[in-house]
Amino acid sequence: MTIQNPTSATSTTPVTVIGLGLMGHALASAFRRDGHPTTVWNRTAAKADQLVADGAKLATSPRDAVAASPLTVVCLSEYDALRELLAPEALDGRTVVNLSSGTSAQARDTAAWVAKHGGSYLDGGILAVPEGVGTAEAKVVYSGPREVLDQYEPVLRSLAPDNQHLGEDHGLTALHEAAFLAIMYSLLNGFLQGAALLGAAGVNVSSFAPVAAMGIQVTTGWLGAYAEQIDNGEYPVLDATIDVQRTAIENLVRESEAHGVNTDLPNHLKSWTDRAIAAGLGNSGYPALVQLFRHPSTPA
Amino acid sequence: MTIQNPTSATSTTPVTVIGLGLMGHALASAFRRDGHPTTVWNRTAAKADQLVADGAKLATSPRDAVAASPLTVVCLSEYDALRELLAPEALDGRTVVNLSSGTSAQARDTAAWVAKHGGSYLDGGILAVPEGVGTAEAKVVYSGPREVLDQYEPVLRSLAPDNQHLGEDHGLTALHEAAFLAIMYSLLNGFLQGAALLGAAGVNVSSFAPVAAMGIQVTTGWLGAYAEQIDNGEYPVLDATIDVQRTAIENLVRESEAHGVNTDLPNHLKSWTDRAIAAGLGNSGYPALVQLFRHPSTPA
Ligand SMILES: NC(=O)c1ccc[n+]([C@@H]2O[C@H](COP(=O)([O-])OP(=O)(O)OC[C@H]3O[C@@H](n4cnc5c(N)ncnc54)[C@H](OP(=O)(O)O)[C@@H]3O)[C@@H](O)[C@H]2O)c1
Ligand SMILES: NC(=O)c1ccc[n+]([C@@H]2O[C@H](COP(=O)([O-])OP(=O)(O)OC[C@H]3O[C@@H](n4cnc5c(N)ncnc54)[C@H](OP(=O)(O)O)[C@@H]3O)[C@@H](O)[C@H]2O)c1
Repeated sequence: MTIQNPTSATSTTPVTVIGLGLMGHALASAFRRDGHPTTVWNRTAAKADQLVADGAKLATSPRDAVAASPLTVVCLSEYDALRELLAPEALDGRTVVNLSSGTSAQARDTAAWVAKHGGSYLDGGILAVPEGVGTAEAKVVYSGPREVLDQYEPVLRSLAPDNQHLGEDHGLTALHEAAFLAIMYSLLNGFLQGAALLGAAGVNVSSFAPVAAMGIQVTTGWLGAYAEQIDNGEYPVLDATIDVQRTAIENLVRESEAHGVNTDLPNHLKSWTDRAIAAGLGNSGYPALVQLFRHPSTPA
Repeated sequence: MTIQNPTSATSTTPVTVIGLGLMGHALASAFRRDGHPTTVWNRTAAKADQLVADGAKLATSPRDAVAASPLTVVCLSEYDALRELLAPEALDGRTVVNLSSGTSAQARDTAAWVAKHGGSYLDGGILAVPEGVGTAEAKVVYSGPREVLDQYEPVLRSLAPDNQHLGEDHGLTALHEAAFLAIMYSLLNGFLQGAALLGAAGVNVSSFAPVAAMGIQVTTGWLGAYAEQIDNGEYPVLDATIDVQRTAIENLVRESEAHGVNTDLPNHLKSWTDRAIAAGLGNSGYPALVQLFRHPSTPA
């Protein structure tokens, strides 16, 4: 056993970050803070100023950026910009980890393109906001070859302590991210509807937020039992029938109307219970609705 | 100071429950378990059988039921059925607590009607499922005269340890319940969309549920800061611009299409970011959307 210098090659790995928007900037900062020699590139060069002042190296082109490190992390608001920016001949023997949000088809296409040019590729999804990157709460999911993740996990851990490998199929990150986004935006919009409703009655939103959080926690507690019903394909009523829940949702519609706030979200929620009842599910529990979510909508 | 018998009149209060559906049954059971002499009535009498076997008294009419106790708790799937069932002349000097879900207009109308006939009225909302009633997790919110809640709080505590008085206006329960429902159903539908998506790729829902719960927890963590922005009316970007978030939601739409699952919820989410961008909010943070939730939809 040898005593290792904490900044020796075994504990730090040169890493390149391409794309220094809100998220890419946070990623580069996290690598740099942990002592990994960090090279950066951004289309708008000025966004690198602070990072360079803190010790990052600014590459003059994406090609030079990729050449500077065995590992390149990409984070752009346009997934497909990666293929426009990265010079194919620079990819040979390099690993590219793309943390931009995209679809599973884009991930598979990009993985094939990188492989064709001799590189290896992981697709990843960040389940955190920029300021959460590098903290204990951050989580990143990856898909693609497990051995590539294993090789670079020590440096990627600078972004999040919790790194989950979803599987070899590069499309799995986008799929899980889509499921996460469906929940996240649904929840945020529900919160905004509640905030608008209470605001119309003069209740301030900061006092509503903890109540909302409690309601969310209660609802989250039901998901395990809902999931079991869905996996078993049987929907006995655990709490209230869809018939009763439709009445509750109708109250939400009417309450929103009465307070002059927007009714699009309430009516959207109502459309699901209406369809369920039309499909004969009025006497089932709420998770029976998954049967409708599984199929494309029939055009009206 | 006198030592009190735990089943003396000071710790138990006769209570009547009208409506023995899934929720009303749970309410009556909770009162009975705590030793309150419990009288019940239900349109379909057979639903009282188990409660009567356990020691509840079955009234032969709603009028007799109200006469049996100073406090009557009502829980029906139709809010306005209360006024059809309860004999006005039986209300004098009685307290009615209505835990059925309704609108604030219905609550105010019913409160006025009960007052006219010499009774007092509280409107309440149960933030729990039937099996949660009487457990530490249950919460009930009330609106109406505070002194009425104070008087009966010791017996109502059998339903939930956490009883919150929202205010004197009887309409406040329905308003808060609507806000809660907006969040609850949005979240459940987001979960069902995610379950359908992952299910299409062969991932079972029970393994998705804990991941979903984690995502929900992360998202819930943002609400305090969102609420502050909404109360201040300023929306600097905390995490990602609405422009970037629209792209993420477009990915959700495309991913849902690619897996052949329903796209109504993703398209509904997308419609909000589209409208926000059309309103010039593309460069703001997500909570800026509340400005759209506050106003009636403009007909397409
Ligand atoms: N922010 C979050 O909370 C968050 C959370 C999870 C995931 N993400 C994902 O992370 C990715 C980036 O998000 P962000 O918030 O960092 O967005 P952002 O602040 O808008 O930054 C976008 C970045 O992409 C670059 N870019 C876009 N198109 C380009 C092109 N054609 N060529 C070269 N560069 C291009 C921009 O360069 P310029 O500076 O030159 O414009 C900038 O560096 C997105 O996929 C997002 O979904 C973000
Ligand atoms: N279940 C939950 O998880 C839950 C949670 C929070 C709030 N709530 C609220 O609690 C209320 C009751 O829900 P639930 O789940 O108990 O519904 P439920 O199981 O369908 O029971 C409905 C009850 O209302 C009675 N009823 C309906 N219309 C009536 C009428 N015109 N005359 C006389 N009785 C009538 C029914 O009598 P019959 O038995 O004769 O049909 C039954 O007792 C609803 O407002 C619901 O939103 C429920």
